[in-house]
Amino acid sequence: MQIITSKDNELIKKIKKLKEKKFRDEENVYLVEGTKMLKEAIDEKANIHTIVVCEECIKDNTIEKELLYEIAKYECIYVTEKVFKSITDVTNPQGVLAVIEKKNNSNNINFDEDIIIILDGIQDPGNLGTILRTVDSIGVKQIIVSKDTVDSYNPKVVRSTMGASFRINVIETENLVETIKEIQKNGYEVIATSLETNNSIYDIDFMKKAIIIGNEANGISKEVQDVSDIKVKIPMLGKTESLNAGVAAGIMMYEYVRKKVSRINQETFFLNYIL
Amino acid sequence: MQIITSKDNELIKKIKKLKEKKFRDEENVYLVEGTKMLKEAIDEKANIHTIVVCEECIKDNTIEKELLYEIAKYECIYVTEKVFKSITDVTNPQGVLAVIEKKNNSNNINFDEDIIIILDGIQDPGNLGTILRTVDSIGVKQIIVSKDTVDSYNPKVVRSTMGASFRINVIETENLVETIKEIQKNGYEVIATSLETNNSIYDIDFMKKAIIIGNEANGISKEVQDVSDIKVKIPMLGKTESLNAGVAAGIMMYEYVRKKVSRINQETFFLNYIL
Repeated sequence: MQIITSKDNELIKKIKKLKEKKFRDEENVYLVEGTKMLKEAIDEKANIHTIVVCEECIKDNTIEKELLYEIAKYECIYVTEKVFKSITDVTNPQGVLAVIEKKNNSNNINFDEDIIIILDGIQDPGNLGTILRTVDSIGVKQIIVSKDTVDSYNPKVVRSTMGASFRINVIETENLVETIKEIQKNGYEVIATSLETNNSIYDIDFMKKAIIIGNEANGISKEVQDVSDIKVKIPMLGKTESLNAGVAAGIMMYEYVRKKVSRINQETFFLNYIL
Repeated sequence: MQIITSKDNELIKKIKKLKEKKFRDEENVYLVEGTKMLKEAIDEKANIHTIVVCEECIKDNTIEKELLYEIAKYECIYVTEKVFKSITDVTNPQGVLAVIEKKNNSNNINFDEDIIIILDGIQDPGNLGTILRTVDSIGVKQIIVSKDTVDSYNPKVVRSTMGASFRINVIETENLVETIKEIQKNGYEVIATSLETNNSIYDIDFMKKAIIIGNEANGISKEVQDVSDIKVKIPMLGKTESLNAGVAAGIMMYEYVRKKVSRINQETFFLNYIL
């Protein structure tokens, strides 16, 4: 087993560059860190190019035996702790990271889903990651993002998705207004959150709806608001009318879930007791 | 106007130490960064000890005139950009930060509120900040945190609260189990989120309820689960049953809001049309 001991090794330098979007785009790969995420990647049959393993972590038993056995099936690079720390982005690295090929994402929107989530300029990687994780939890398989939204392959985003990155089709659009018009042509009403309306999210049925979540500081851009069909707000009870973008998205997605669950329960009740 | 040009100035060194909990506790003060947060602090009449101003930012007009005028009413320290950057925690600092006295928080729980939010070991500063912001948005004025929860005066927490830090009474308890028993004695039912139940949050009325949010990785601790009255889950539709802690907290708090708004609407309808 050969161990890379120099930070200036060409391969290590190449891997480090993947922290930048430019190089991720060029190589069509991205970085995934930590044992949990690596297991998810293996389970989801992600196309793993290379796994970087910190050899001190093998000795320390930081990486469990079963995972090491799994890892060995892939192309592995063993590095010293010093080299590993020069690549990692996290404070307490777990000694494994992988270079993974980007999902062969289709840019064709799936118009069979009940709801479509659209992000207009989300900037915070943690917020994007959290939103992807929530989308995953409600069984939706895609998300539309404007091109000024933070890159979904940003290491911080990938980390906070808890594996949703491997399952969600992220469709980046050059022209969000045109994409919204296409979504509308396919039978969806487009919902924009706004403070300047009295429509409440509780009065919307969330079937065949596209929900736009705006930028953290400036909300939804004017031209996108202008093409939307319905403005809604999340009723609040406090002095300040302000929610974190990830939380606001979560509340709306779970209003969809609540109505869906209630509809399923009614149908089950009908089938079991009325018929 | 005297300008501090050395990072080794005693006052600057003292301010930098406030990034650590130990020194925040000793001095009973904390740091607040940025123009927006400083305005909130002034509006909320927080006890501002000192404001640190980057003098290049005055020349650059990074700080607006009105705020500079307000700032001048307080004890100010002017520093060079180099010194400012040595204190700040953010990538794009706005040139102002303040040393603020901690709220004279009462440790007495207010038992007049409809719901009480309890955090059992939340570790991520962004999650705590987001939860405080959500609590603020639903008009609740206090939160109970276990002593292993991240410090609510951590600079990252303060930043992500968007000013909620100045309004919410954070009550840290040495013994969460005892505190929960006290809350129960005062007429609250205590709700723990759990994956091992069929009770849904949609079937709970959220009046006189205390809601526990658990640690990001391990959930609610066993001893705390054991004293809770009801286990509930957020129904999900995806393959993975996992939500970010801040989002899960947000969904539950807004289920309370939904029921409260619906109750208010019914009462208004009754008063307007039936009577």
